[in-house]
Amino acid sequence: MSGFLFERVLLDAEIQATFADTAILAALLRFEVALAQAQARTGLIPASAAQAIASSAQNFVPDVHALEQEAALDASFAIAWVKCFTRHVAAHTADAARFVHFGATSQDALDTALALCTRSALGKLDALLARCAAAAGALARQHARTPALARTLMQPAGITTIGLKAAQWAHSLAQGRHRLQTSATSALAVSLGGAVGNLAAHGEHGAAVCAALAEALQLTDPGASWHTQRENWVALACDAGLLAGSISKIANDIVLMAQFEIGELAEPDAPGRGGSSAMPHKRNPVLCLRALAAVQAVPHLVAQLLASMKQEHERALGNWQAELAAWPRVFVHTSSAAAALAPLLQGLQVNGARCQANINHLQGVLFADRLAQLFAVNMDKLDAHELVAVLARRALDERRPMSELAMAHVVGDTRLNAIDAETIAACFDQSSAVQASARGIDHLLSATPQ
Amino acid sequence: MSGFLFERVLLDAEIQATFADTAILAALLRFEVALAQAQARTGLIPASAAQAIASSAQNFVPDVHALEQEAALDASFAIAWVKCFTRHVAAHTADAARFVHFGATSQDALDTALALCTRSALGKLDALLARCAAAAGALARQHARTPALARTLMQPAGITTIGLKAAQWAHSLAQGRHRLQTSATSALAVSLGGAVGNLAAHGEHGAAVCAALAEALQLTDPGASWHTQRENWVALACDAGLLAGSISKIANDIVLMAQFEIGELAEPDAPGRGGSSAMPHKRNPVLCLRALAAVQAVPHLVAQLLASMKQEHERALGNWQAELAAWPRVFVHTSSAAAALAPLLQGLQVNGARCQANINHLQGVLFADRLAQLFAVNMDKLDAHELVAVLARRALDERRPMSELAMAHVVGDTRLNAIDAETIAACFDQSSAVQASARGIDHLLSATPQ
Amino acid sequence: MSGFLFERVLLDAEIQATFADTAILAALLRFEVALAQAQARTGLIPASAAQAIASSAQNFVPDVHALEQEAALDASFAIAWVKCFTRHVAAHTADAARFVHFGATSQDALDTALALCTRSALGKLDALLARCAAAAGALARQHARTPALARTLMQPAGITTIGLKAAQWAHSLAQGRHRLQTSATSALAVSLGGAVGNLAAHGEHGAAVCAALAEALQLTDPGASWHTQRENWVALACDAGLLAGSISKIANDIVLMAQFEIGELAEPDAPGRGGSSAMPHKRNPVLCLRALAAVQAVPHLVAQLLASMKQEHERALGNWQAELAAWPRVFVHTSSAAAALAPLLQGLQVNGARCQANINHLQGVLFADRLAQLFAVNMDKLDAHELVAVLARRALDERRPMSELAMAHVVGDTRLNAIDAETIAACFDQSSAVQASARGIDHLLSATPQ
Amino acid sequence: MSGFLFERVLLDAEIQATFADTAILAALLRFEVALAQAQARTGLIPASAAQAIASSAQNFVPDVHALEQEAALDASFAIAWVKCFTRHVAAHTADAARFVHFGATSQDALDTALALCTRSALGKLDALLARCAAAAGALARQHARTPALARTLMQPAGITTIGLKAAQWAHSLAQGRHRLQTSATSALAVSLGGAVGNLAAHGEHGAAVCAALAEALQLTDPGASWHTQRENWVALACDAGLLAGSISKIANDIVLMAQFEIGELAEPDAPGRGGSSAMPHKRNPVLCLRALAAVQAVPHLVAQLLASMKQEHERALGNWQAELAAWPRVFVHTSSAAAALAPLLQGLQVNGARCQANINHLQGVLFADRLAQLFAVNMDKLDAHELVAVLARRALDERRPMSELAMAHVVGDTRLNAIDAETIAACFDQSSAVQASARGIDHLLSATPQ
Repeated sequence: MSGFLFERVLLDAEIQATFADTAILAALLRFEVALAQAQARTGLIPASAAQAIASSAQNFVPDVHALEQEAALDASFAIAWVKCFTRHVAAHTADAARFVHFGATSQDALDTALALCTRSALGKLDALLARCAAAAGALARQHARTPALARTLMQPAGITTIGLKAAQWAHSLAQGRHRLQTSATSALAVSLGGAVGNLAAHGEHGAAVCAALAEALQLTDPGASWHTQRENWVALACDAGLLAGSISKIANDIVLMAQFEIGELAEPDAPGRGGSSAMPHKRNPVLCLRALAAVQAVPHLVAQLLASMKQEHERALGNWQAELAAWPRVFVHTSSAAAALAPLLQGLQVNGARCQANINHLQGVLFADRLAQLFAVNMDKLDAHELVAVLARRALDERRPMSELAMAHVVGDTRLNAIDAETIAACFDQSSAVQASARGIDHLLSATPQ
Repeated sequence: MSGFLFERVLLDAEIQATFADTAILAALLRFEVALAQAQARTGLIPASAAQAIASSAQNFVPDVHALEQEAALDASFAIAWVKCFTRHVAAHTADAARFVHFGATSQDALDTALALCTRSALGKLDALLARCAAAAGALARQHARTPALARTLMQPAGITTIGLKAAQWAHSLAQGRHRLQTSATSALAVSLGGAVGNLAAHGEHGAAVCAALAEALQLTDPGASWHTQRENWVALACDAGLLAGSISKIANDIVLMAQFEIGELAEPDAPGRGGSSAMPHKRNPVLCLRALAAVQAVPHLVAQLLASMKQEHERALGNWQAELAAWPRVFVHTSSAAAALAPLLQGLQVNGARCQANINHLQGVLFADRLAQLFAVNMDKLDAHELVAVLARRALDERRPMSELAMAHVVGDTRLNAIDAETIAACFDQSSAVQASARGIDHLLSATPQ
Repeated sequence: MSGFLFERVLLDAEIQATFADTAILAALLRFEVALAQAQARTGLIPASAAQAIASSAQNFVPDVHALEQEAALDASFAIAWVKCFTRHVAAHTADAARFVHFGATSQDALDTALALCTRSALGKLDALLARCAAAAGALARQHARTPALARTLMQPAGITTIGLKAAQWAHSLAQGRHRLQTSATSALAVSLGGAVGNLAAHGEHGAAVCAALAEALQLTDPGASWHTQRENWVALACDAGLLAGSISKIANDIVLMAQFEIGELAEPDAPGRGGSSAMPHKRNPVLCLRALAAVQAVPHLVAQLLASMKQEHERALGNWQAELAAWPRVFVHTSSAAAALAPLLQGLQVNGARCQANINHLQGVLFADRLAQLFAVNMDKLDAHELVAVLARRALDERRPMSELAMAHVVGDTRLNAIDAETIAACFDQSSAVQASARGIDHLLSATPQ
Repeated sequence: MSGFLFERVLLDAEIQATFADTAILAALLRFEVALAQAQARTGLIPASAAQAIASSAQNFVPDVHALEQEAALDASFAIAWVKCFTRHVAAHTADAARFVHFGATSQDALDTALALCTRSALGKLDALLARCAAAAGALARQHARTPALARTLMQPAGITTIGLKAAQWAHSLAQGRHRLQTSATSALAVSLGGAVGNLAAHGEHGAAVCAALAEALQLTDPGASWHTQRENWVALACDAGLLAGSISKIANDIVLMAQFEIGELAEPDAPGRGGSSAMPHKRNPVLCLRALAAVQAVPHLVAQLLASMKQEHERALGNWQAELAAWPRVFVHTSSAAAALAPLLQGLQVNGARCQANINHLQGVLFADRLAQLFAVNMDKLDAHELVAVLARRALDERRPMSELAMAHVVGDTRLNAIDAETIAACFDQSSAVQASARGIDHLLSATPQ
């Protein structure tokens, strides 16, 4: 249980589990065992001690609640936990106890444990993003030529296709996935600096132990302490923040296109989802809601982490601890949004007929741009612009196709009467816009990282 | 359990409990029972139904985990919970079931329940702030005349007293407490708007039911739906944010004055607190750490809540749900910082000797200002400023009292040699600064709300 | 010129002017003159010096660009400016020069000058809010009974009136205005602490000088230095942040209701506003755009100010200077949004026919709630809920009024066939919802601060 | 002039100039000329038109103030500017006018112009970072073996070297520089989508025109419209945010180590810098102040940009315009901090004697860790920890070297009396810590990107 009730119902249970107490405790233990083994391998501690530590670890089941209360005194869970584990090892093999957490500091254990949990979370996020991008890509191909309104400044502005919208989604999501994969290789690193970051207690063995530990945990060897150098770590959170931004754009567009009066898109039906306690007829866009509600916190969390980079000297007071506390939330919120987006994109209902009907309601005024360019060949550009604006307004007011009004006008306008009906009709043909959108899809999907 | 492990160890357990699942469930139930009773009182529903609902509530123990999973489908805990409670009432008194949650919407239940939990949290915060302000006030009086360095831009700048610092703390804390008390009266309001905010299903009884409900729950009657008008609610969070800012200032100053090389203040000793796993000699300022780590998130949470005020139409999609999820955190973080500050201020160790020694190390250069003003009577102001800067630099470089250097100088400076030794000595007398600080304390404490 | 080009075009020129260089320079000068006069009145400095300072001030025209370059060295405009003004006074009346800025520190001048500029900005904001609230109030009364869809989770959910929406706007805006008026009385205070906040150089005259200065500048006398106690000051920014939140809610709702496919509201026409370079037919909701773009920064600015409250000792290094720099932006952005909202609300076009048509398109499913309650008298509540959901879905799918379908159903349902046609028809009567909304308007407007 | 007065004095004038009006106007013009030339090259418009446009551009001097007022109506500077430029071209070559801004939209011009200005800003930032990293690298080598206190949780915790601290600075700064170089290649892209993002008006020439335009402007060809896909763009701001975090850590550490009572570091002296109007003796760490004050806004700006990624449909209402307005600030603030850091690191004064003296004041308790490990060979680990804690406390209380106390103790402790004096003395030898730090420096500098 990783948050208050109203928070938990918005967040994905599987993702929350990657940072659950059990996951963190297992990661701490894994760090200490691997550290001892790495130190034994380089000869820093006896092999027997490492063996004893590994063996004791197998039946170490601390009382988390008690540790939590003890930890409150130091504001560091690791200090209490290490003491407890040391006592546990001592009870099995007294000699080995003094090699527990040897030459390490509590931050080493906490940072590394969190890196391990983050790796699990990113694994799940990666799989979700693969699903999302694949679903968006499929929509792009399927609806490559489904005409739909393009809207700018929240008003209809031209014609595009549902496929081009989906291709942009696919591209954003696949790129975000790729970005996270790349930054994870630097961010998911072993933390091993010892008391003050220079591994002094390791003598000449520091670099070798760190390399061996990294190999054992399959984390990156950072080459130096990052106790107060959080750039690579926080960069990962920034990349999650960018992904959250991508998701918010997609989910919001779907909400807008799913409005009752627009009706171009709809969430997949699912039993029990989207009902309202008071209004039985209502189908709420609940997956979009979950995605949007989950990401709303993320920009602020990223700001918090960026602000927490001001970490004093060799270990920070306040900002590091706050960073650790906030960290999981970035990934849990972003991944939960992806977990809502995946079924949404996989089951998204596209109402092509409504898309075309919404275009038609505009009476062709969307082609005003092209008509203005046509007229501008034979008259002043700004005058053409104004003339077309008048025709557009009439088309909407009188609910008549603008092409008809244009044809009626040119006959009586000496500047324009050389233009024939076919040329005017061609202005109002949506196929070139559909074609342009289809070209865009090819381009985007071919440039989309797999 | 209200957060990830590394978050929970920073936060106060008692405060977290005010938003625990049990607290929220109890508050939801309280809302529904009080609503039915208020509706019965105005004649909107039968008195027997209200009685049956109240009676059924006494043994309603829902399966939170099951509800949570069901709620995930709707992203609304209330819908699932209301269904479950309705079934529970139906099992007892079939006729009463249709009066459960009558004319209300899920947001009514959730908002009101959160207001009830927030009231508990504020009660605890209020008590903590009373302790903090009293402790700071006591320090102010006790050390009203304990001279200490005043520092500007992180360098010694003059003389003040520990008491004046503490009086400013007391004033800030008491004022913050008062601010929260005031805004709580508007913020802690019943939410009752029905499906779309106009209580249409209540007919003419809306206002009366709302008033009766407010009275029963001892919350404010807001006079209108605040489903998407979150000003009074978020204002409360802003006031918590201001308090968090006050606490960060105080805790940070204590950390700075508790640095080993400065040593003017120290945290109270407590068994098991502030040790380090690697360094047995170390006494870490753990209470300050807890306070600073807890408040670091708060400005970002306030920004999140302010940004979430863009709530669409009659119920928001995304921003409202995100607001509910983030809400407890503002108060839990701020209160946890107060919970660390209270024992810190109550047991703060003031080392008056170190305070005076730190002043003395400055060789009197702190009085340069006054010396410059004295000299400026007889010479150009800017020249005096520069002359004094030279003397100040020599005093520090040569580790000699600046008063001696000043006396030596004036003898040979024709512009200044009329100034006698006593006048110069008076410049370097710290008692007027102490006196000015003491006056400031009186003023502050008398203006401090109780 | 108060920002980069793309920022300036979003912001109101008049508001920007309240923090322009000329305004700040005038305020600094006003502070120094009033300080000297206050000090002369209490006998701290000679009356002739105060007179000379006031007189010199009248023809003091510093070279801002040169001061700016000099100030960069100290990162404090006041130090360079005070030196320059002191030289200017010295050139007129050598004796008076040493009484310029007597016993004050640069923060005193900067804080007070900014308070004076902020008062101007708030004056303009207050007038804009008065216009906004009055316009919204007029809309509320005019459209008290104009039925319109209420929407929850971005889907139609029931019936309300345009007037109730507008009444909520009026209430939010008037309340925000009132909130700012209240917090301004504490925030707009004289800053006078001297070098380290205890006014030591003023001897016993500190309190009297501060009071006299406050009176002269018509600012509040804070009773103590607030050099590093920024609560009251930042509280004002929080209240601007809340108002920005209110504005974002209103402008966003108007954008949504002004979508082409919804068409319930439209921005006032104005020559040259809202055109698009590429699309002659387009009318963009430019006033909403300006309001929304202007407030987008505000939550983040408030967070920045809250985070900057961690001000060290007696004068902060970094956070204070950053606060001063960010400060005007909070008020300029919020006021610019209000400056867009005022003409928007004053000229808002309400299309009542479209409002009703949008209701009608829903075939009465909005009354499903009431029908379910009616049915629930004679059948299980949850069963009734489900039955009604089926009817609602059919009404939409078949484009038939749900009332018809309901009547057809009850005839053949033995549980319900006692219900007569009139009772069913009453369920689908929107007048009670309109009536409920009208009651809400009365309540809100009567509770709206003037 | 790019901000309010108190903001401008914190920010670097050269950096501000990269986003000045003149820079933006020149960039807009460069876009339109290059667009026409690219379109002529692909045959979309006549070569003569492109030539006429390029030729007219040479003497186009618009009235910015008038445009600004006109732009306020549309909240888009580009619409007004394009109209004005079109009129200007028309006045020269009527035929060419209709090919101005052909097939483009205002966002194309604005986004691309901002990318061009951002490239200039990044060029300056890159040069500053090269200076910063080189200076930090030089400090690292020069002080590789200058012992200094390592501090954790704001208390002395062990021994490191000034060189290791500086090597970490060098590494962070060089890495941040590298990160920005990498993300700039994706972010600094041409924006060319036409009215709704599919370049429909370009027919088959869209991709070719975009490629030619990118080549001419030496920007990246993004392969698709990024009108509402802002990931690569905002990623650049995130990387600036990370760099700002690195700078804040460095500047803050220098402030802390430059405290009068610590005195390990000092800012370079410079005439006129760091004085105080009231305190002639004071040398304020002004470069640190400038760096810290400048970056304080950055996390919040990054959050604002991340939140603004929720851009509707094919062009956003509000969030895009707000993004443009905030954008320059991220780079101006970060670069200004770098501009303060460069001379700071180049002239940083290291007081090695104070560093050693501060170590010595700790009486060797910093080696408690090693002593505990030595003792733990012969006694229980936790007992050893406690024993050493007692000795450490005595050393500090009695101001006696802990090595002496340790030797005195072991003689009488049967568990430990086999340990000889040399072994104990070796525990208190700081050379191994210095050696470990020196190894760390080699590692860091060799891994530092050039």
